[in-house]
Amino acid sequence: MSEYLFTSESVSEGHPDKVADQISDAILDAILREDKHARVAAETLVNTGLVVLAGEITTHANVDYIQIARDTIKRIGYDNADMGFDHRGCAVLVGYDKQSPDIAQGVNEGEGLDLDQGAGDQGLMFGYACDETPTLMPFPIYYAHRLVQRQSELRKDGRLPWLRPDAKSQITCVYDSETGLPKSIDTVVLSTQHAPEIDHKTLTEAVIEDIVKPVLPAEMLTANTKYLINPTGRFVIGGPQGDCGLTGRKIIVDTYGGAAPHGGGAFSGKDPSKVDRSAAYAGRYVAKNIVAAGLARQCQIQVSYAIGVARPTSISVDTFGTNTVPNELIVELVKRHFDLRPKGIIQQLDLLRPIYGKTAAYGHFGREEPEFSWERTDKAEALRADAGL
Amino acid sequence: MSEYLFTSESVSEGHPDKVADQISDAILDAILREDKHARVAAETLVNTGLVVLAGEITTHANVDYIQIARDTIKRIGYDNADMGFDHRGCAVLVGYDKQSPDIAQGVNEGEGLDLDQGAGDQGLMFGYACDETPTLMPFPIYYAHRLVQRQSELRKDGRLPWLRPDAKSQITCVYDSETGLPKSIDTVVLSTQHAPEIDHKTLTEAVIEDIVKPVLPAEMLTANTKYLINPTGRFVIGGPQGDCGLTGRKIIVDTYGGAAPHGGGAFSGKDPSKVDRSAAYAGRYVAKNIVAAGLARQCQIQVSYAIGVARPTSISVDTFGTNTVPNELIVELVKRHFDLRPKGIIQQLDLLRPIYGKTAAYGHFGREEPEFSWERTDKAEALRADAGL
Ligand SMILES: C[S@@+](CC[C@H](N)C(=O)[O-])C[C@H]1O[C@@H](n2cnc3c(N)ncnc32)[C@H](O)[C@@H]1O
Ligand SMILES: C[S@@+](CC[C@H](N)C(=O)[O-])C[C@H]1O[C@@H](n2cnc3c(N)ncnc32)[C@H](O)[C@@H]1O
Repeated sequence: MSEYLFTSESVSEGHPDKVADQISDAILDAILREDKHARVAAETLVNTGLVVLAGEITTHANVDYIQIARDTIKRIGYDNADMGFDHRGCAVLVGYDKQSPDIAQGVNEGEGLDLDQGAGDQGLMFGYACDETPTLMPFPIYYAHRLVQRQSELRKDGRLPWLRPDAKSQITCVYDSETGLPKSIDTVVLSTQHAPEIDHKTLTEAVIEDIVKPVLPAEMLTANTKYLINPTGRFVIGGPQGDCGLTGRKIIVDTYGGAAPHGGGAFSGKDPSKVDRSAAYAGRYVAKNIVAAGLARQCQIQVSYAIGVARPTSISVDTFGTNTVPNELIVELVKRHFDLRPKGIIQQLDLLRPIYGKTAAYGHFGREEPEFSWERTDKAEALRADAGL
Repeated sequence: MSEYLFTSESVSEGHPDKVADQISDAILDAILREDKHARVAAETLVNTGLVVLAGEITTHANVDYIQIARDTIKRIGYDNADMGFDHRGCAVLVGYDKQSPDIAQGVNEGEGLDLDQGAGDQGLMFGYACDETPTLMPFPIYYAHRLVQRQSELRKDGRLPWLRPDAKSQITCVYDSETGLPKSIDTVVLSTQHAPEIDHKTLTEAVIEDIVKPVLPAEMLTANTKYLINPTGRFVIGGPQGDCGLTGRKIIVDTYGGAAPHGGGAFSGKDPSKVDRSAAYAGRYVAKNIVAAGLARQCQIQVSYAIGVARPTSISVDTFGTNTVPNELIVELVKRHFDLRPKGIIQQLDLLRPIYGKTAAYGHFGREEPEFSWERTDKAEALRADAGL
């Protein structure tokens, strides 16, 4: 086959699952600002008129959970019952428990002493990078994020005042089988919540002209590119009223858009003693540095952990035949240059900062803001040197 | 590299995320028994003493949601506040809304007329099969499920009366890089909730002798296999008291254990008009039949949809070089032999039956019970013939 299709999707900050993720991470940030030793697993459910905060939190921080939830919803833009959700009028139920002392004993053991804090759970995590975009992210997920980010920008600055917070994008790319690189865009799907006044035709044209075309590289759009804009025909009801949202339910949007496997653990609301989050960030850091170092054009790493144990139970690296040095050497270099014990990761990536709110929409990876320490390529030079390149 | 490691995990029916999945699917089944045209998106959150039922349901079925939630928790085995959760004593809050009429108009259009019911959402889904086990599932996830299933069996039949419902398993396999097949087991992690009376040493021995060894193929266990049993040292607090559970938070356990990518959509609680579920089932059906037909030893399919549109926006097939006929032909055969429009899938796999409760623990794929119609290899012969094999 000389070409094949690959599809990824993204959602805007007003999507109900992302509303839940952002509330969870806003609560985590508020706690970390006061208490770096807190243990946080903050889950959120949002539905018509309702926010439920649950999970396990052990902290001495004094945080007004209800206010944080309301402020997050306000920032996102649900500020009017017309939109089906209003930060002022929704119910917020709080049901946090403390971290189980049985789990804490496994994680705390050795904390402070050396680097042998145990992993906060068992599990498997993947990291990935490839040379399809300058940020070393796969093309479809990278641009799917940019589409919904643009939707939010035009909504917030008032250029398209009939846009409302909830939106989804999807990009199907044509890949060249020889090079493994994207060569054109086959289909763009974009659904956006809107005010009832706007008609379907005006909306479609504005979305294509003002969102799709300014964002997607012109040379990737062809005469054959299909545009499916609000294909249900109407999307006035949206956000938590149209669809119940839960923390951790956009884990493929959060990562590589399906271009790499996923271990299954969610990120938002979890402090970095939870390897679901910190080891997935570390995996991205490792994979990105390997590609940035020129050791491979495409790199996937899997790590796994046992609860209460610091050292990963497994580390493996796949470069899909794109490696410029032997794979065994890459595995060796990973072990030599990256400390993948939970505390090693937390220190190396400086993860005990209140930086998580920003991660909770538009992707945890491929971001260029300074908070995203796992996107740095500061190990690339040392890796190159050590590989003899 | 002559070998590499790969890790997958599973959880028992008592794991809080699985409690939520099972409640969601029990509610779906109860509705489908009375109303095949219902639209169901049932989400569940469980936490200490609390069950929240939310989501979107449009049905004329008359279902006692609270009782179904309590019955499910009882069946799983949380029947005593000693275990941190009791079906009799927990609070159950019900907050279902109806399906958004804006979504319904996209899905309903053409319903009944022909096969052009629109997809219930946009999204991407993967299907996968390989020849690592007789059920054409990857080895690590297959056996990770069997471990926790065995834990539940010994708990329920009283052979190990100190076992409690919550448990997790994880298997790290050594793969031969040449053949791509598993050659031994490097590490087994098993954590099980237990009664406070049992000491760590007795528990460890019993778990290894009565759960691990009877389940795992003896020839895969070597002198180097490591066993990490309850590595936190104590796991008395468990279930929803130890960890908040949400529907759709074990999507990698539900599918291929990370051996294939995932599109991100959850299964439990969703009626099959939601392609997140039905098209992932169809993807498995396609991939399994291709492997069963001998067209490839390993097969991955990606499909994608736009909301309100019947035909997939993309279909692609990867056989990782294991194909016995050209890949283009396989893609052709898929299009010829499988109708991947939502209604085509529902009819072909007979998905409007109350079969979902069984899927909500121990994996949606690789199961041999008759309800799992997507595991049939009834297309293999026709595919072989059409491929000229
Ligand atoms: C289609 S809903 C999922 C199904 C839903 N739970 C149900 O019961 O029908 C998923 C997402 O699609 C988007 N959405 C909601 N209403 C829509 C509409 N009328 N047209 C297109 N997209 C919509 C929102 O972003 C929403 O979170
Ligand atoms: C470790 S918990 C996740 C972290 C948790 N939310 C927290 O805040 O610490 C994930 C799963 O591990 C299992 N688990 C709970 N307590 C455990 C213990 N003491 N030892 C080992 N595994 C445990 C349960 O299956 C639970 O659902």
